[in-house]
Amino acid sequence: MKTLRRIALLIMAGGLLVETVRADDLTAQIGALLTRQAEAWNRGDIDGFMEYYWNSEELTFSSGGQTTRGWRSTKENYQRRYPTREKMGQLTFSQIEITPLGDSATLVLGRWQLKRDQMPVAGTFSLVLRQIGGKWVIIHDHTSRAEMP
Amino acid sequence: MKTLRRIALLIMAGGLLVETVRADDLTAQIGALLTRQAEAWNRGDIDGFMEYYWNSEELTFSSGGQTTRGWRSTKENYQRRYPTREKMGQLTFSQIEITPLGDSATLVLGRWQLKRDQMPVAGTFSLVLRQIGGKWVIIHDHTSRAEMP
Repeated sequence: MKTLRRIALLIMAGGLLVETVRADDLTAQIGALLTRQAEAWNRGDIDGFMEYYWNSEELTFSSGGQTTRGWRSTKENYQRRYPTREKMGQLTFSQIEITPLGDSATLVLGRWQLKRDQMPVAGTFSLVLRQIGGKWVIIHDHTSRAEMP
Repeated sequence: MKTLRRIALLIMAGGLLVETVRADDLTAQIGALLTRQAEAWNRGDIDGFMEYYWNSEELTFSSGGQTTRGWRSTKENYQRRYPTREKMGQLTFSQIEITPLGDSATLVLGRWQLKRDQMPVAGTFSLVLRQIGGKWVIIHDHTSRAEMP
């Protein structure tokens, strides 16, 4: 019985270890994704920035009470709203919180900030990511902007 | 071989049927939840409205570039912003889109509208729901308001 119990405990500990490694791994993966996304933005590379969005007509992007559908329209909105490096400013993400939703979806909350000479802006975002073809992609983004003081 | 193939087809068809019933079931459950939530709002019952939010400190509600944490604070925000039946107006949800995320989480997008005499408002929302203790609850809400014409 003692041996059985030890084996059971070892299996449970192994399970917990696997869970912890998985969670650490997810945090690292999502963290790296957001870092690379912000880096792309900060070198003026909207194509690079868009790589982390699901390249699908089913991608949804909500902001200011409206929802944009599809990868292409989402990209065109970014290009229209941020036509120059000055308007793009320097993007930073902070206060990232990752909530796994089953094995292949994740909710990510965080804050964003655009430093720029004219009209700096900041706000909060909610992302839903899915693992599609072995790669994490943003399938939905709801972004809102804070009133600046 | 023919019999085996027939059995295989029957099993596949059965599997598809189970999937379809599950998806229909989810759509019905989430639809009913949102209907009951709007009904609670429309009788001025913020407690009833709040029943569909996860009663946890981990509930997150994002709007206007800010994130509120916890069920109690979320409820207090509603009470502060909508102190009277007139301010609460008549709530309707529309254009509901349900995206299952694995077996126990769902992304729900939709539009909301508050009809009221002064300052009618409308916008879009993104909800993440989880099945906790056999019940679907909203664990995250990101709501944004459209500029009214």
